[in-house]
Amino acid sequence: MENKLTPFVFANRVPQAAPMGAAQAVNRTDSIPLSYGSPISDSFPYEELQLAASEAIVTQGHASLQYAGADGPAVVRKWIAERSALRGIVTTPEAVLVTYGSGQAIDFACRAILEPGDSVWVESPTFFGALNTFRSSEAVLSAFPIDAEGLRVDLVEEALEAAVRTGKPLPKLLYCIPNYHNPGGVSLSAARRKRLAELAQSYNFFILEDDAYSELNFGDEYLPAIYAYAPQRTIYLGTFSKTIAPGLRVGWAIASPETIGKLGSFFHGSRASVFTQQIIGNLLRNFSLEAHIEQLINRYRQQRDSLLAALEKHLGALVDYTVPEGGFFVWLRFREEVDTGVLVRYAAERGVSFIDGRQFYLSPDEGAREARLSFSYCEEDALEIGVARLAEAYRIYLAERSGVSPA
Amino acid sequence: MENKLTPFVFANRVPQAAPMGAAQAVNRTDSIPLSYGSPISDSFPYEELQLAASEAIVTQGHASLQYAGADGPAVVRKWIAERSALRGIVTTPEAVLVTYGSGQAIDFACRAILEPGDSVWVESPTFFGALNTFRSSEAVLSAFPIDAEGLRVDLVEEALEAAVRTGKPLPKLLYCIPNYHNPGGVSLSAARRKRLAELAQSYNFFILEDDAYSELNFGDEYLPAIYAYAPQRTIYLGTFSKTIAPGLRVGWAIASPETIGKLGSFFHGSRASVFTQQIIGNLLRNFSLEAHIEQLINRYRQQRDSLLAALEKHLGALVDYTVPEGGFFVWLRFREEVDTGVLVRYAAERGVSFIDGRQFYLSPDEGAREARLSFSYCEEDALEIGVARLAEAYRIYLAERSGVSPA
Repeated sequence: MENKLTPFVFANRVPQAAPMGAAQAVNRTDSIPLSYGSPISDSFPYEELQLAASEAIVTQGHASLQYAGADGPAVVRKWIAERSALRGIVTTPEAVLVTYGSGQAIDFACRAILEPGDSVWVESPTFFGALNTFRSSEAVLSAFPIDAEGLRVDLVEEALEAAVRTGKPLPKLLYCIPNYHNPGGVSLSAARRKRLAELAQSYNFFILEDDAYSELNFGDEYLPAIYAYAPQRTIYLGTFSKTIAPGLRVGWAIASPETIGKLGSFFHGSRASVFTQQIIGNLLRNFSLEAHIEQLINRYRQQRDSLLAALEKHLGALVDYTVPEGGFFVWLRFREEVDTGVLVRYAAERGVSFIDGRQFYLSPDEGAREARLSFSYCEEDALEIGVARLAEAYRIYLAERSGVSPA
Repeated sequence: MENKLTPFVFANRVPQAAPMGAAQAVNRTDSIPLSYGSPISDSFPYEELQLAASEAIVTQGHASLQYAGADGPAVVRKWIAERSALRGIVTTPEAVLVTYGSGQAIDFACRAILEPGDSVWVESPTFFGALNTFRSSEAVLSAFPIDAEGLRVDLVEEALEAAVRTGKPLPKLLYCIPNYHNPGGVSLSAARRKRLAELAQSYNFFILEDDAYSELNFGDEYLPAIYAYAPQRTIYLGTFSKTIAPGLRVGWAIASPETIGKLGSFFHGSRASVFTQQIIGNLLRNFSLEAHIEQLINRYRQQRDSLLAALEKHLGALVDYTVPEGGFFVWLRFREEVDTGVLVRYAAERGVSFIDGRQFYLSPDEGAREARLSFSYCEEDALEIGVARLAEAYRIYLAERSGVSPA
């Protein structure tokens, strides 16, 4: 009977291709993953998490193992609301929606805001996970470049003016990573934040402000969030994935109560796991996450420095790169023409992985010379070895391309 | 500046109303929640969960607290695939998609299958959480009654034939709860399962088979899942919420590899929490969930019997109800005309909650005489007291309605 089935037509929004970022060639067990945008595993607060989880199960489990009823979610939302003041965000726990990682909040924002055919404007390059989500929202995507001060807000403004003049569609949503950009490593300047917020209000679109890395600030300065300038037209996203552990999958959105209500409706009457929120709530009560973040900052600053020193040593004359003041990533650009989508395979052979530039662009014609290296996941020694392997892979790649054996 | 903002038009799919099932009037701290469709808290395997969580953090945390890399998800999928054989499901771990509760799998199924305006056929009554999801999928919903043998598949067949004859749209999705129906308490007969599967194949629609309660089977007979008869046109949903604990939010979908791939694409390259899957994976290795389920069955069978005995004692001549052979729910129908949406407030005053019938129907004109009582969450003593309070509330309601003081 199965053979006689008529083919079934799935919805248009189902992506046709594999998700971007999915192809990370790793074929050696000793491979050094400069591709992983993950925190370093030995930074996790194991002992405190174990205590927090035991408390959540043994003492509080009658409520925290249920659908609802435990106090963890309220503790978490209160901490988030208070901590957000550091970024100039004035909010209340009621305007915080906890989600399964901020990726789910991006998904909910798309669903609350976009009809098929609506316009979404993104940075170029940008995070492939968000691109995956926008692509399945059936939106029309346009990209705007970033420079050393982040998104070229002047070009956004020109495009908005041109759209009004020519009757083209205005965006409903603009996706921006203001701090320690993934993959660009840069941060949006304060002046541009303010101007972007004004544009969102004037042209009536939402800024989706993905601020996953802002706690990992290697400097002393805290720039205000874009949200601070346009609280009615910004959906601000944060996460515990970089400061506690990604496996808990706890992120959040902050927006106006009306907007948060619309985002939350996509839980369909349910909510994010009470259990994992209870663990984090217990952790926040029994432990100084602020002090832990200070340690992480010192750690990641050193790892960044190690990666940069290795780049200088092994690839110094061959590449340009940003010096990120926080976050996880260095964005590399080869001076000579190269296809990093091919180089990634040579690198895999030599025992190092990275993410090739094309994964971060709307158009497959962009990013061939670029690569994202993460300094977050690997120890300092491994970062040095990884870059040495990458340099070796690059030499072999160049030599094979030119038909000459490497020296 | 905020005052000058133009109103923002959110997407059509955002629900306008509060989610159904949201209004559960409880205004006494000693209220007995016959409304809660939750497992009884003291049934959770606390000690084993604590060990499993400690192992997931202390021993395996370098991987299980990361985005990926731990072995828990594979252990969980393997257990699910093997256990499903009990229900006649032949599958592999690769065709199991773990989701944040089966509610998320319903959401993913809607997104993978439905365009706005597509038809979804549901049972009447049915689970309000699923109705919430279908409503925000912009589908056109039609409802088909259930009787003592579950969904009236004969009426579905007539409607399919009529749709073909008259050129009306066929369904893309039919949502069905085959075992110990929520709220109806009934189970779909084997003959109807087979016929429904044949119809899905002939008329080319998907059956969304929500089998949340099938492990809690008070009898000896295991009916085959609908999936067993139409694996290419069924998405089967299961959950650990009723057998381990809902707070972990681990459910799953089983479908053909092609269909599972499409559902999984709505994780946008991410996946369900590795950490909670690692906890369950550890539990499954160190503990007999099968033996635990046996204990749960004995427990819930006793609780069902207590609820039914109390109903017989306090409301026997006034109501009709199903005798469920498993699951959590008794579906009550008052013989006299009554509005359970009003009665629910009288009940709250007397210290008992239930869910009024209207919450389970597409049309607000249906369900006024009906009520869902759950025997899952409360101890046997509380079940007896809860029903006594409900009977008292009913007498007061009747008396006040007729303008006579209760005796």
